[in-house]
Amino acid sequence: MKLTLYTDYSLRTLMYLAINRERVSTIQDIAELHKISKNHLTKVVHHLGQIGLVETIRGRSGGLVLAWEPEDINIGDVVRQTETDFHMAECFDHSTNSCVYSSACVLESTLSAAIAAFLNVLDGVTLADVVRKNSASVKTGTVQQPVRLHARRPAVR
Amino acid sequence: MKLTLYTDYSLRTLMYLAINRERVSTIQDIAELHKISKNHLTKVVHHLGQIGLVETIRGRSGGLVLAWEPEDINIGDVVRQTETDFHMAECFDHSTNSCVYSSACVLESTLSAAIAAFLNVLDGVTLADVVRKNSASVKTGTVQQPVRLHARRPAVR
Repeated sequence: MKLTLYTDYSLRTLMYLAINRERVSTIQDIAELHKISKNHLTKVVHHLGQIGLVETIRGRSGGLVLAWEPEDINIGDVVRQTETDFHMAECFDHSTNSCVYSSACVLESTLSAAIAAFLNVLDGVTLADVVRKNSASVKTGTVQQPVRLHARRPAVR
Repeated sequence: MKLTLYTDYSLRTLMYLAINRERVSTIQDIAELHKISKNHLTKVVHHLGQIGLVETIRGRSGGLVLAWEPEDINIGDVVRQTETDFHMAECFDHSTNSCVYSSACVLESTLSAAIAAFLNVLDGVTLADVVRKNSASVKTGTVQQPVRLHARRPAVR
């Protein structure tokens, strides 16, 4: 059982933008840092824009910023919107389900309750909670910087 | 987010054996009813035997039976043993993880807590609970039989 790569990359993109709240980031920055295909990430960012979590700034020095404060972005909400489905077993897709037990089986409702419990835990966490340690270490300088906040650019000669 | 087909088939095999508690079943029966590859199901049944949930009876009229009463088989325990991993995101596999946030990110612990909540719901349900409606309808004859309990064999002429 795992989240899709799509959700994984969505969460990392949001984390990147939260840590780099004071600057405009680019897809290139995020793709390079995470070693993710730029094409794949472009789709992820486009979707994050569509669901109102990321804003695109046009122009020469344009790029991406978070559309909300990290405190206002709920991880449960993000996962609900980035996971394409929560079809735990065949019976969850009523259009294709051919399981012979479906009409008299409580597995679907049990698994649905389990998913609700899973998401309920994520509902208690915001993007700010997830990146707090990163941000604190950067702001105070008391902890060795745990991540490269943006891809290194070649020094100007 | 979904369970593996392996878990799906494991659960259906256990449901079949629970409903057909009073007879010896065969892999052929279960594969035909569920339209699952017999080879795939053989691996599933072998594993269910290894973890002590299914017993194999050898001989001409041999086959499979549940090793425990359905009341004593917990769905949470089954899923823990049939899901090969609960690696929700890259950071869960410490041997291959290259996520730059790992050292200062609480996503892994948050997702771990969410998985625990998911399994906690399944821990409250037994195999008997899952198949109760099927069994009742068969035993009382008051409800139209919802599933074919074993693959139909050709009538003897």
